[in-house]
Amino acid sequence: MTLDLRIVSRQLGSLLIVLSAMLAIVSIFAIATSLGGPARDHSDFYALFISAGLGALSGCMLFVVGRKPGKMIGQREAILLVALSWLCGAAVASMPYFVWARLRPNRHVVAHPFDSWIDCYFESMSGLTTTGSTILSQIGTVPDSLILWRALTHWLGGLGIVVLFVAVLPMLGVGGRRIFRIEAPGPTPEGVRPRIQDTARILWMMYCGLTVAEVIALKICGMTWFESICHTFATLATGGFSTHDSSVAGFDSTAIHVVIIVFMILAGVNFGLYYQILQRGWSKARKDPELRAYLGLIICATAIITACLYASPPPGYKTDASGQAPFGTVLRDSLFQVVSIQTTTGFGTADFNLWSFPAKAVLLTLMFVGGCAGSTGGGIKVGRILILIKVILAELEHAFRPQVVRTTRVGKSLISPELKINTLVFVVGIGGLFALGTATLMVLESGNGIDITTAATASAASLNNIGPGLGHVGATCNYAWFTPESKIVLSMLMVLGRLEIFTIAVLFMPRFWRRD
Amino acid sequence: MTLDLRIVSRQLGSLLIVLSAMLAIVSIFAIATSLGGPARDHSDFYALFISAGLGALSGCMLFVVGRKPGKMIGQREAILLVALSWLCGAAVASMPYFVWARLRPNRHVVAHPFDSWIDCYFESMSGLTTTGSTILSQIGTVPDSLILWRALTHWLGGLGIVVLFVAVLPMLGVGGRRIFRIEAPGPTPEGVRPRIQDTARILWMMYCGLTVAEVIALKICGMTWFESICHTFATLATGGFSTHDSSVAGFDSTAIHVVIIVFMILAGVNFGLYYQILQRGWSKARKDPELRAYLGLIICATAIITACLYASPPPGYKTDASGQAPFGTVLRDSLFQVVSIQTTTGFGTADFNLWSFPAKAVLLTLMFVGGCAGSTGGGIKVGRILILIKVILAELEHAFRPQVVRTTRVGKSLISPELKINTLVFVVGIGGLFALGTATLMVLESGNGIDITTAATASAASLNNIGPGLGHVGATCNYAWFTPESKIVLSMLMVLGRLEIFTIAVLFMPRFWRRD
Repeated sequence: MTLDLRIVSRQLGSLLIVLSAMLAIVSIFAIATSLGGPARDHSDFYALFISAGLGALSGCMLFVVGRKPGKMIGQREAILLVALSWLCGAAVASMPYFVWARLRPNRHVVAHPFDSWIDCYFESMSGLTTTGSTILSQIGTVPDSLILWRALTHWLGGLGIVVLFVAVLPMLGVGGRRIFRIEAPGPTPEGVRPRIQDTARILWMMYCGLTVAEVIALKICGMTWFESICHTFATLATGGFSTHDSSVAGFDSTAIHVVIIVFMILAGVNFGLYYQILQRGWSKARKDPELRAYLGLIICATAIITACLYASPPPGYKTDASGQAPFGTVLRDSLFQVVSIQTTTGFGTADFNLWSFPAKAVLLTLMFVGGCAGSTGGGIKVGRILILIKVILAELEHAFRPQVVRTTRVGKSLISPELKINTLVFVVGIGGLFALGTATLMVLESGNGIDITTAATASAASLNNIGPGLGHVGATCNYAWFTPESKIVLSMLMVLGRLEIFTIAVLFMPRFWRRD
Repeated sequence: MTLDLRIVSRQLGSLLIVLSAMLAIVSIFAIATSLGGPARDHSDFYALFISAGLGALSGCMLFVVGRKPGKMIGQREAILLVALSWLCGAAVASMPYFVWARLRPNRHVVAHPFDSWIDCYFESMSGLTTTGSTILSQIGTVPDSLILWRALTHWLGGLGIVVLFVAVLPMLGVGGRRIFRIEAPGPTPEGVRPRIQDTARILWMMYCGLTVAEVIALKICGMTWFESICHTFATLATGGFSTHDSSVAGFDSTAIHVVIIVFMILAGVNFGLYYQILQRGWSKARKDPELRAYLGLIICATAIITACLYASPPPGYKTDASGQAPFGTVLRDSLFQVVSIQTTTGFGTADFNLWSFPAKAVLLTLMFVGGCAGSTGGGIKVGRILILIKVILAELEHAFRPQVVRTTRVGKSLISPELKINTLVFVVGIGGLFALGTATLMVLESGNGIDITTAATASAASLNNIGPGLGHVGATCNYAWFTPESKIVLSMLMVLGRLEIFTIAVLFMPRFWRRD
């Protein structure tokens, strides 16, 4: 069979039309907010509206060129569709930024990061992949409607990932996702809902429910509606875009910090587990080994970092007269950063670039661990780490007891040799891409005098969809200074990490494009 | 069955007695060379003689306490024996350094690195594991007999590894070594020589043959007998200890460089292949996929680095009037460094710390690749890299063609799922230990203001048994400045790498020590 590009084209067209509809909705927000207030230019409305039009136009063209699929879409077509959805989706999502930069009244006077199309693409890819790296140094220069759109890309990307990973891909049996069929005891294996659409709808409703809950909670804690919506989108998608240049540190309210911590933790949990709780109550979900490991990791990492910070407060840390930081603040900041990094959100309440090496090493390790399988978080995933540990222990025991054959289990799930190999290849792949990304950045940015810490953490933070790293991509810095070539590399790392390598990597295999 | 420590004790005792016999032989060299020459102190002779005595004494005690094994030594006993041989062997091998430092005439006037027992242990572990990292900044301060002993530890360690990995471990079926049964088509699978002792003897003779050939070749090229013997020991074991502070760069002779390059390449080849050539001629060995990949890698890496150096000569590089380095010199230096790093020897003819980032990145990658399976080289091994590539490609194809089941092959050898998992776990293990080693060095050396490049390359160079790294452990530096704690960590990384992780790592599993 040849690859049926017309099926892919039609589905991709539909997706772009949906994305354009979202743009149109935000353009209504743009015009609505400007009507009541003081007189100002409508460049953001035009930008959103034009982008919606262009997006819808290209979507329709792809739709018309395409063909309706038969009873089932093929494996290769599904993979190509997912890959192109992200790559082209980011292009459409970047349009309003670029058009706005061309229309803004002061365009001849002041330069803006959005003047460059690659910067716009970087920002929208960072949004859709829920990475949260930004090229904006002054968020205030961008109109509210575009900030809302920026947050919305997170939310849409997060929803896409949940639906994709929990509902769609396991049913297609796409390699590299087999972990979810086992680790997400929710929808798939026991066939509660046989049709993908039904499962997807339920996941979608849960996601919306969490969104409403967090918006209200943040509003009660003192944010404006606008701020609470933007931060909610960024939290639940484990994205990390804020409405403040200083991220969540800009809100000096413990209540807000706690609410965001709680919802970040919730967003890092396997959404299949929520489905299961809805269907069958707490009892089984409570024993989920991945959930336990995930919460355990958060507690341990917080304890270590709190101890580090409390023992020797980093420079610039608010201390009392005796040079001692208040324990409550230290605990809150540690917990916030641990959760923010482990769930791969990337919000900041403190500049952890200034923290001591052990604290940074713990955060760096968490970057690679990530959230649970089937969550909006990135990284290797806690479920895979559990499998990895079991496989290593089994292999070590095999070295001195070759005659003993034990089955490998995580919780009650049996880990097949195929899943072991898949998990190990994934871990090696993440390691390899991390090293390759670091080396590429070192070469591309040699003119900027980049240091290895910056290159390595920029690579890790992009690949694992986190956002901030260390050095010149630390919590108080941004990605604007990279060369355009590096921004493309970083964008590719984001989408590779987001789609768990395989979906993008197979596109580079000649065999993928060949007839069967 | 409980672990039979008495069997282990007896075997370990024999090994220490053999090591002491070697010390005694070198002590004869010490007294013989001093008799003809000018009057000087005999502290080195006493040091070697006392160490031989102490070593023999402890060996005899272990031997007497121990018990003769039955018809076969158990799996766990074999592993424990191998691990303890290296750990205790390094202790015995370090004695002459330490005793000499206590006896030398100027001991109250000048401090010497060998004053610290940990430094002595580091040096002898570095020798036996054929790493070649040194804590000596002035080799001239150490008597010739100890320099010879230092080189001899390389040679013994290299021989031990060849015999262990090609002959002994595959027969025991020790996990983590299964690659050699498949990759080394020589002795084991076809049962040419059924008994381990016979195979070991043939390998030993081939190793000695190569030694004699290189000693003569280096002597003809203008080295003294002493220099050629020391450098031969370091070359064939892929160790890297030299008789000069500036390593092989101290010999400004292209002939010497070429001879060392040739023998380094030979030492990086699977010794099982030589066995096969002896038995059945060239025809089959020539088609060995690992050999081809190994030579191909050397050629490609040399081409890249030659291009980098020729395009922009690094600072301090000898250039002609037009600022251009002579092509021949550039090619020779590039080839030397590539071979030295890939075979994990670690000799230097140029300070690659000053080279451009792409050249350094290539060398850093080669550090992890290492030599062929069943050679004296360290690292992941070319054979494992080939398996890794095949497994990744198969896994990618599986993602879009789940129904297609292909067998994975390297050359004509079938790669079983167990071998895939074992190879992947090994690669993940090397990556994990590298990261852990780097983080530990960062913490332990925070007082010394260590940078991440130094810590990472020190960790990689120790784990992969290379020797020099970048930064403050570069080709012109040494390991003397590390804290004692770090030297212990680096020694452990060396032995972990040398014994391919499993043999040491299992000792930390409670199950290893428990009754069956």
